[in-house]
Amino acid sequence: MLPLVDHHCHGVLRADPDEAAFEAFLTESDAPAAPGTSFFDTQLGFAMRRWCPPLLGLEPHCPPERYLTRRRDLGAAEANRLLLRASGIGTYLVDTGLPGDLTGPAELARLGGARAREIVRLEHLAERRGAEERDPDKFLAVLAEAIGAAAGTAAGFKSVAGYRYGLDFAPEPPGPAELRAATARWLSAGAGRITDPVLLRHLLWSAAHTGLPLQLHTGFGDPDLRLHRCDPLLLTDFIRAVRPTGCRLVLLHGYPYHRSAGYLAHVYPHVYADVGLSLAHTGARAEAVLAEFLELAPFGKLLFSTDAYGLAELYVVGARLYREALDRLLNGWTGSGAWSAADAERVAALVSAGNAERVYRA
Amino acid sequence: MLPLVDHHCHGVLRADPDEAAFEAFLTESDAPAAPGTSFFDTQLGFAMRRWCPPLLGLEPHCPPERYLTRRRDLGAAEANRLLLRASGIGTYLVDTGLPGDLTGPAELARLGGARAREIVRLEHLAERRGAEERDPDKFLAVLAEAIGAAAGTAAGFKSVAGYRYGLDFAPEPPGPAELRAATARWLSAGAGRITDPVLLRHLLWSAAHTGLPLQLHTGFGDPDLRLHRCDPLLLTDFIRAVRPTGCRLVLLHGYPYHRSAGYLAHVYPHVYADVGLSLAHTGARAEAVLAEFLELAPFGKLLFSTDAYGLAELYVVGARLYREALDRLLNGWTGSGAWSAADAERVAALVSAGNAERVYRA
Amino acid sequence: MLPLVDHHCHGVLRADPDEAAFEAFLTESDAPAAPGTSFFDTQLGFAMRRWCPPLLGLEPHCPPERYLTRRRDLGAAEANRLLLRASGIGTYLVDTGLPGDLTGPAELARLGGARAREIVRLEHLAERRGAEERDPDKFLAVLAEAIGAAAGTAAGFKSVAGYRYGLDFAPEPPGPAELRAATARWLSAGAGRITDPVLLRHLLWSAAHTGLPLQLHTGFGDPDLRLHRCDPLLLTDFIRAVRPTGCRLVLLHGYPYHRSAGYLAHVYPHVYADVGLSLAHTGARAEAVLAEFLELAPFGKLLFSTDAYGLAELYVVGARLYREALDRLLNGWTGSGAWSAADAERVAALVSAGNAERVYRA
Repeated sequence: MLPLVDHHCHGVLRADPDEAAFEAFLTESDAPAAPGTSFFDTQLGFAMRRWCPPLLGLEPHCPPERYLTRRRDLGAAEANRLLLRASGIGTYLVDTGLPGDLTGPAELARLGGARAREIVRLEHLAERRGAEERDPDKFLAVLAEAIGAAAGTAAGFKSVAGYRYGLDFAPEPPGPAELRAATARWLSAGAGRITDPVLLRHLLWSAAHTGLPLQLHTGFGDPDLRLHRCDPLLLTDFIRAVRPTGCRLVLLHGYPYHRSAGYLAHVYPHVYADVGLSLAHTGARAEAVLAEFLELAPFGKLLFSTDAYGLAELYVVGARLYREALDRLLNGWTGSGAWSAADAERVAALVSAGNAERVYRA
Repeated sequence: MLPLVDHHCHGVLRADPDEAAFEAFLTESDAPAAPGTSFFDTQLGFAMRRWCPPLLGLEPHCPPERYLTRRRDLGAAEANRLLLRASGIGTYLVDTGLPGDLTGPAELARLGGARAREIVRLEHLAERRGAEERDPDKFLAVLAEAIGAAAGTAAGFKSVAGYRYGLDFAPEPPGPAELRAATARWLSAGAGRITDPVLLRHLLWSAAHTGLPLQLHTGFGDPDLRLHRCDPLLLTDFIRAVRPTGCRLVLLHGYPYHRSAGYLAHVYPHVYADVGLSLAHTGARAEAVLAEFLELAPFGKLLFSTDAYGLAELYVVGARLYREALDRLLNGWTGSGAWSAADAERVAALVSAGNAERVYRA
Repeated sequence: MLPLVDHHCHGVLRADPDEAAFEAFLTESDAPAAPGTSFFDTQLGFAMRRWCPPLLGLEPHCPPERYLTRRRDLGAAEANRLLLRASGIGTYLVDTGLPGDLTGPAELARLGGARAREIVRLEHLAERRGAEERDPDKFLAVLAEAIGAAAGTAAGFKSVAGYRYGLDFAPEPPGPAELRAATARWLSAGAGRITDPVLLRHLLWSAAHTGLPLQLHTGFGDPDLRLHRCDPLLLTDFIRAVRPTGCRLVLLHGYPYHRSAGYLAHVYPHVYADVGLSLAHTGARAEAVLAEFLELAPFGKLLFSTDAYGLAELYVVGARLYREALDRLLNGWTGSGAWSAADAERVAALVSAGNAERVYRA
């Protein structure tokens, strides 16, 4: 079986999560489940209980408590090792911009017996620099240098402008005066979370000019965002504006607007789409969701990822759901004669690894 | 078979509808079918002809005329009784705010051999008070009292702000001055249909403070609404604003934005989603639509309903389509090993009845 | 097998396309495929390779190069003849407003052994007149006359206002003063592509008053459009405003907003929906997409088309995908008892031909 390239994921927790922490990683919600309900009772929860217990020597669908007890008995390091090595992922591209005591790329690669490279989150990079350099002009120079340095080692950049503002930002790069003013405002207010669209756009354009692939959060995520402002179609004018730079844009997740992400990947040569979060969270429905991606997205433009974060289980679930969904779809299409077996095999290799290798030179 | 809790429906007609009236209840259109077409030629029409004729002693899919003749021969009361008792619904939560010579909750319960409680439609409640009390301050006091009284007996409230204005209203409660001015304007204009967003927001916030569940129309309905302004995501800021009150919001219908309703139910603890109208009108496609609800909505957050109105047939169709769709989905998922049989049974009980019992204390 | 009425298509190329030109007709993109990718690697590309090679004596799924060689050996005229005659299409309604050395309706009919009528593209008709008559008042008079003359022979009109501006235009007809001013501006600027919404609206209303069916581009297409501004729901106020004229509106394509197109066809008697582009480009997924159309759209309101353009292959692919998708859906629904066989046959005849014959009197 071809090792997968997971072009968008995060590290795993070094320590054992307790049951509440574990459950919190199964949802995009920022709050405990409503009274009388549980986030184990979701497609993701059920998929986790299907695929992971057997990897730790338990029967599928065993109760969460039994699974968590077994996991604790093994210890975080051993559980992480067992799970990651069973995921079938051969390369991790790791967005290192999330908080928590998480493994970095090298440690993740070691645990998983795989390769890893870094994806640099633009807002995180800028916020760290803002904590150290409070003069606007110097900050902007330091930022430019940091982005340039990152471009030398990273596999790509990532923006969460969708979370911080929405994707309905002005498409062109900000002018020098408005950029300097926005920078000064932000620095003098303490250089906290960047939400000013002027700064967010500056980060996007700075990354675009490096020539590295640029990942953009689109579609659903935690309640920090307003979902209708994360429709990837809102990026249309930015996509057009950035096209001459040669920057390749990778639209992450997309659900429930994933068909629109597929459309953009279809009509714009520099746009790619990602299955990410959309499969893990839809569980038994991953086949249906993946099929919708495979309507308009050219087969050379769709990329596998897990968006796994915190729990090694999420790598397993993301990878298994993807593989099973793809197998079923392709078997159906070759079985009916709609596709040839050779084409199906070729497309599977592209989406699983080849497209990411081409885009990220990974 | 577990009796269903139908948490959103309306009464049935006491009298026999003629063929044109019957056909009109099969559509959300406000006009006769286009020349050369019929509303019997819809998914709902076909589903009605599948499930209902056998309950009145006829073969499935018999022509509409034969069915209507048989129905008339039985008489409205007997037809209603036969159909409702075959629906498998054990509890009706009845929105009493629709016009027509319809059974109220008690009469519906008697006909169906079931229990019933009332859902109070906010706009209807306010409009009835406005017809009697034309002084703004007195009206607002009377309204507050009426909402408080309703909260003592009703199972919940319902808002049709989506129809009357759209869901893109300002999220916060209106201030006292703008509320008084809007009230005065509306009363002096004759206290007709409330369409002013200030009044609609006042009703929503008044209901929210009672602590009862609040149903909100979202998604498709009759051509009185503009569908793109009924995307439940437009409620995001209201959902956030109302969260501290503890009010539980139930997003009705949702189609074609039902995946977004599922997302909101996923990330906000006080938000629930409803299958309602989305299954009855999609007939042979109900399984596919229900499956899309079951992607992001946590299984403790999705509620069955029929949204039946006027025709007892609509209870039968809504309930049968739901049961059949759920059975097929769950059989598929347990058959492939994606879900355990015990989990499937548990989820079926939650969506069919348990979630509504918990939310409405019904 | 009932001959299809293809109510929305374009002509075929008279000459042989080379490989790059052939590939360009398989996509809505305006650019070559991204490095390392090919537009043959799409659902449409795979569907073409499934259905067309056997019609030219080759095995299904043979490599594109072999297919193109064979096609060239046969010559364009013979390949067009073979392909069109195998498409099963008995009537073509041909939008003649596209550029290129394309067959017109009569030539297409002759090649395909079928009937053909013209659909007049409003913007194209106006732009041709604008090239000849630069006085605003005279232009408007000439335009009115041309639309009247076209109404005497054409089967209907088509608007690409969605491409040129978006569907979020003001719903009412423009007033005389703003129309004259906009006309003067456009003419004095050289009478190029019409993008001014005032002129686009004038064309729409002029067509509406002729009583002929009016096709409107909605949903996806080439990157000349902004997809989120082609949601057919944005037409809601125009649909309401135009209703008293009696003009029937046919919403083309719709994807990914095709469920919303179905909704509009459901609630407004003068609105129809079209499967067009949505099936050809989704290939092995055509069944799933067609099924979504068949949720809310009344069965007397949905129309088959191919939107084929340039390549005779696109007629074959559009027709085969449609027939196979419909057969599978209907077999599934009759097999489960959801629909009767007689109803299924009747609905197939309506969507394949009957609805178009009624709407266009074709």
